[in-house]
Amino acid sequence: MRDAVEIGLGKTALRGYHLRDVAIVPSRRTRDVDDVSTSWQLDAYPFAIPCVAHPSDATMSPATAVSVGRLGGLGVLNVEGLWTRYENPAKVLQELSQQDTVAGATQRLQEAYAEPILPELIVERIRELREGGATVAVRVSPQHTLALAPVVLDAGVDVLVIQGSIVSAEHVSTSDEPLNLKEFIADLDLPVVVGGCTNYQTALHLMRTGAAGVIVGIGADASATSDPVLGIRVPMATAIADAAAARRDYLDETGGRYVHLIADGDVRTSGDIARALGCGADAVMLGEPLSRAQEAPAGGAWWHSAASHPKLPRGAFRSAQPSLGTLEQLLYGPADQPDGALNLFGGLRRAMAKCGYRDLKEFQRVELIL
Amino acid sequence: MRDAVEIGLGKTALRGYHLRDVAIVPSRRTRDVDDVSTSWQLDAYPFAIPCVAHPSDATMSPATAVSVGRLGGLGVLNVEGLWTRYENPAKVLQELSQQDTVAGATQRLQEAYAEPILPELIVERIRELREGGATVAVRVSPQHTLALAPVVLDAGVDVLVIQGSIVSAEHVSTSDEPLNLKEFIADLDLPVVVGGCTNYQTALHLMRTGAAGVIVGIGADASATSDPVLGIRVPMATAIADAAAARRDYLDETGGRYVHLIADGDVRTSGDIARALGCGADAVMLGEPLSRAQEAPAGGAWWHSAASHPKLPRGAFRSAQPSLGTLEQLLYGPADQPDGALNLFGGLRRAMAKCGYRDLKEFQRVELIL
Amino acid sequence: MRDAVEIGLGKTALRGYHLRDVAIVPSRRTRDVDDVSTSWQLDAYPFAIPCVAHPSDATMSPATAVSVGRLGGLGVLNVEGLWTRYENPAKVLQELSQQDTVAGATQRLQEAYAEPILPELIVERIRELREGGATVAVRVSPQHTLALAPVVLDAGVDVLVIQGSIVSAEHVSTSDEPLNLKEFIADLDLPVVVGGCTNYQTALHLMRTGAAGVIVGIGADASATSDPVLGIRVPMATAIADAAAARRDYLDETGGRYVHLIADGDVRTSGDIARALGCGADAVMLGEPLSRAQEAPAGGAWWHSAASHPKLPRGAFRSAQPSLGTLEQLLYGPADQPDGALNLFGGLRRAMAKCGYRDLKEFQRVELIL
Amino acid sequence: MRDAVEIGLGKTALRGYHLRDVAIVPSRRTRDVDDVSTSWQLDAYPFAIPCVAHPSDATMSPATAVSVGRLGGLGVLNVEGLWTRYENPAKVLQELSQQDTVAGATQRLQEAYAEPILPELIVERIRELREGGATVAVRVSPQHTLALAPVVLDAGVDVLVIQGSIVSAEHVSTSDEPLNLKEFIADLDLPVVVGGCTNYQTALHLMRTGAAGVIVGIGADASATSDPVLGIRVPMATAIADAAAARRDYLDETGGRYVHLIADGDVRTSGDIARALGCGADAVMLGEPLSRAQEAPAGGAWWHSAASHPKLPRGAFRSAQPSLGTLEQLLYGPADQPDGALNLFGGLRRAMAKCGYRDLKEFQRVELIL
Repeated sequence: MRDAVEIGLGKTALRGYHLRDVAIVPSRRTRDVDDVSTSWQLDAYPFAIPCVAHPSDATMSPATAVSVGRLGGLGVLNVEGLWTRYENPAKVLQELSQQDTVAGATQRLQEAYAEPILPELIVERIRELREGGATVAVRVSPQHTLALAPVVLDAGVDVLVIQGSIVSAEHVSTSDEPLNLKEFIADLDLPVVVGGCTNYQTALHLMRTGAAGVIVGIGADASATSDPVLGIRVPMATAIADAAAARRDYLDETGGRYVHLIADGDVRTSGDIARALGCGADAVMLGEPLSRAQEAPAGGAWWHSAASHPKLPRGAFRSAQPSLGTLEQLLYGPADQPDGALNLFGGLRRAMAKCGYRDLKEFQRVELIL
Repeated sequence: MRDAVEIGLGKTALRGYHLRDVAIVPSRRTRDVDDVSTSWQLDAYPFAIPCVAHPSDATMSPATAVSVGRLGGLGVLNVEGLWTRYENPAKVLQELSQQDTVAGATQRLQEAYAEPILPELIVERIRELREGGATVAVRVSPQHTLALAPVVLDAGVDVLVIQGSIVSAEHVSTSDEPLNLKEFIADLDLPVVVGGCTNYQTALHLMRTGAAGVIVGIGADASATSDPVLGIRVPMATAIADAAAARRDYLDETGGRYVHLIADGDVRTSGDIARALGCGADAVMLGEPLSRAQEAPAGGAWWHSAASHPKLPRGAFRSAQPSLGTLEQLLYGPADQPDGALNLFGGLRRAMAKCGYRDLKEFQRVELIL
Repeated sequence: MRDAVEIGLGKTALRGYHLRDVAIVPSRRTRDVDDVSTSWQLDAYPFAIPCVAHPSDATMSPATAVSVGRLGGLGVLNVEGLWTRYENPAKVLQELSQQDTVAGATQRLQEAYAEPILPELIVERIRELREGGATVAVRVSPQHTLALAPVVLDAGVDVLVIQGSIVSAEHVSTSDEPLNLKEFIADLDLPVVVGGCTNYQTALHLMRTGAAGVIVGIGADASATSDPVLGIRVPMATAIADAAAARRDYLDETGGRYVHLIADGDVRTSGDIARALGCGADAVMLGEPLSRAQEAPAGGAWWHSAASHPKLPRGAFRSAQPSLGTLEQLLYGPADQPDGALNLFGGLRRAMAKCGYRDLKEFQRVELIL
Repeated sequence: MRDAVEIGLGKTALRGYHLRDVAIVPSRRTRDVDDVSTSWQLDAYPFAIPCVAHPSDATMSPATAVSVGRLGGLGVLNVEGLWTRYENPAKVLQELSQQDTVAGATQRLQEAYAEPILPELIVERIRELREGGATVAVRVSPQHTLALAPVVLDAGVDVLVIQGSIVSAEHVSTSDEPLNLKEFIADLDLPVVVGGCTNYQTALHLMRTGAAGVIVGIGADASATSDPVLGIRVPMATAIADAAAARRDYLDETGGRYVHLIADGDVRTSGDIARALGCGADAVMLGEPLSRAQEAPAGGAWWHSAASHPKLPRGAFRSAQPSLGTLEQLLYGPADQPDGALNLFGGLRRAMAKCGYRDLKEFQRVELIL
């Protein structure tokens, strides 16, 4: 039975569970690691691992987005980030990589992102991605989708990611013409991923817009501050499971349209990836974990895009940490530390093997314990 | 169902929830930040933000009380504090701002508050408030209400706040004539705010005294010690929700009298404000969060009035912290730190927008998660 | 309903609550502090406060036991402690007061308590207590009760405390003749206090031995280690409430015999005293909180008697802390620190006043919240 | 009722309990320590204490395995560890004992265990164990059982331990011929202990292989990292209780075959041993607690065998800690520290006495509290 309590007379609250609250339980069968598949497919695009890179400038440059693609995942570049504001953001990135206090870094982020976005740089960056040879995916915010979409689509992308911290299928505004996601997506002939959302209702409505994938969560990580700033907290295990229920119901109401769930938040280790998939996600969005790759553009620093908001920054800047290895080593090992930060998908594969599962779809049914 | 457990054979306890235990949940609609209203009205007095300043000498001088009023909130001056004991409390405040141990500071507080209250200073302070042009509100303790009320009322105030750490509608005494709140309030023609209280029964009885507003909570903050000293702890989410139920029942029994709930305690960040209102409060009382305004009279130190009790101090002194910005910046931003301490009501407004609500009354129905 | 869960198939566990888990809830009435009584009576002996001093050598010398008595509580001297092993334990106590590591102190305790108990010193110590003019109470362990009782009773005591860490009414032994508590107590004409116990069944059986008081708990404090050493942990709120149920049932089965419950463990502050009484205790046993009195014989150090066990010490030595004030100040204030360590019974009295109760018996029915 | 919650729509999780979550509850009877028996018997082999040494190279050399046996427990040597890879592993062990960072140590472990296992050394080590005069037990991994069994069995062992971090009765592989445990065990005429497992189903299936003992748990200790790496966490109180239910059902289905449960994980102190047995275990596997014996081959360092995995190490290296005493003192005292790390089985014996139990089988029914 759903775990709801009356916190006071007539006021109830559901109890939500974080990924760290749950663990997967091995079943009575085990399986060879080599017999396990971690492959995933979004629309026509196949991936060796269920990995979508979070579009933060701290981790995704045109070059690293291509690298993620070559390694079997999906790299996503933010076309509202530094790469479309600066011809060469190297200097800004280096300066940010040297910040060591949250307060100072936040002000520096606010300044850096105050530069305008240049459409010609959007075209240029997308060209770089395409030349890299991997699946081309870029992120736009819901507020700027209508303005930037023509540029982006003309430049030619494979997957469009419309991502804000909280996105709904129904945005109300008295001043601007709001984005009608359903109409917008219907007019496109490429797969759109949209989110983040945090519960069943919003997930279901986002699925009804025609999106190929829905992002669950708001990218919360160790640096997230949407809880103190907005009072919003997303227990990811519950959010994913609720969205998975929406996926099931939407599959039923459409007679077979399967929308992919991409979990964005609380995923720090290979064990967290296993937990997120075990709760029902199809893939995970990796942000902070990739910031410690040798190739990371910000030299080991990390920030979430909301951290640069000019009036109400949410999300702390994490100062630069030493590299843990190459991007390849982060994703596939070998690990020389036992903390789950390296060999992220080797860890997932072994977790699946220990539980006797063959593929990701089966693994979504794994037993959980609190 | 109400969350009650049997802690031992035949002894039950309700489970209470703190504000930090709950979070608000975005619904399937979002809204433009500019379309959201945070306005609030107490009796005939309208406010741009649901903000009542806690009457601690650490934050409220005549000057800062006026500033809060000008910025759209309600400043409250304690007429049993330093400003009515000293012609010029600047020296005492400065000395307190330099204390750096709890033990030393507590003794210094006890000495400072041992000076007698001078009626002529009460008159003078109220005159200063009135000249400042904002709504004039002062705080008296229940024990001294009968003695001080004539002076206060003659001096002319708009709102009277009768506040003690625990106030009931029925105080029993064999020695003194106790304050009969109901008769006292009936004789006045100005709105009275009374509290703090911690549960449904007490809130309901305080409403029946004719008060315009009821304070829920005992101002507990990070420095509060009523738990170790008295064994009393107020889980604010539960206390607010219970008092909101009393408000509803009282509205029904009176055929329409709406009593405002002012949440006093556990509110540290903009997210906490959203949580308190989401639990059913009409406004929040801000104490410690304002102590870090540039204008704060104690230079960044903080204490609650009970911290100066001569025999049984409750509430620790918090030594001076660096200023975070002006009062205006604390209330309205811009924030240059992402921890929810700045832009307190900009954070509230954005939280309301993310959840799709238009005004505070609607926002009280927001969904909560534990 | 009782809070029991199945921790695994077919294995259930009750959920227990610690004193720190609960808090008292003010009711809709408040009362003048001066109208509140904290008096308590055990058999023919009246006390101004419900305070029994824990018989640790760190706090109870003949002199301090007399002082506690004069201040309105019940001092208890351990006749198996240092005062009956050494003509003058001052040197040993001073040496212990200077230990600063747990390991070193434990070995020193083991050595100090290896000295034999001298019957003539028992007689001498009881004479000192009697000359002090307060109620005379001494503690013996269940193992040595039969051997020491003749000496103790001949010397003349008012109250006999038979206390071990876990005491049952039915001790089984194949080698020694075990103490039959029921027969032993029936033969005495003075009130006996016996314990500790931790649940309903044991409490009820100890009541049936004819004891005037039953100790609930095993004296667990911040230094207690019965959890890591024995796997035994006593959630005191639950233990007290369960024993209170046993008291009620025993009252019924005897047609009116009321056995007092003395809570021993987890009581550190005035708030904890309020909590313990609110759960149903008649008095509290104070150990560690008294170790910081100016008069404390071990100069601020603290250990529980089980800490000196020769083969399996349980309970860590806490090195000497600075004095907080005189014994009188600890019990009755004034407090110059707000942490509940001073004015222990002034805090209790105020808690009772805030909740509107007149005396301790009424206060046992106070509402609790988790 | 089983404690299951719906973490999201349609996705449930059981709530699991760790050993530290539970405590044993004394009953209304107590017993003399000398009347308590801690003896245990596996197949034809009797033991004075329910102690199986975890086969880590950090604690078990041929010499210490023999010592554990002489002291009344069961020593187990890993035949896939350093002792069968190096003629004289003293130098490697010493070098490991001097590592002081997890990262450096992990790499050194990976290198040290990259040496091949030499069959002639297996024979030699087993000869050393046999000459020591105690029960001879060695550990093999499930993957290498078929390859190593002939050598091991020829060399002559009393008990065979087949142990991996997660072992199931049904391993699926498309490349190798997997080990069929049931057939393998049926062919042997010596008792086999197999595991670890984590739930009812797997335990029951492992019992049906004919094993004499089943290991419950994956050896999780303070250094374990299977949670971050694999998302697998084993709440031991629940795992043991579930496996005990499987033992009961298997006893019934076979008309009397009793399979022993050996708890491996979360056991750090004498209190934890009491908890594990109280949940239903027959014996505990001691790893890290023995690493601080004077005789420990790695001089106080500790690692679990999975910590040396070449691509995905799980389990951190714990750098060398000072010795706490001899192996005998660890097991039987006397303790000169009160933290439950010394006199491990004296602590168990006393816990049983405090609860009034005579032997381990009775003690499995002890009451528990959360």
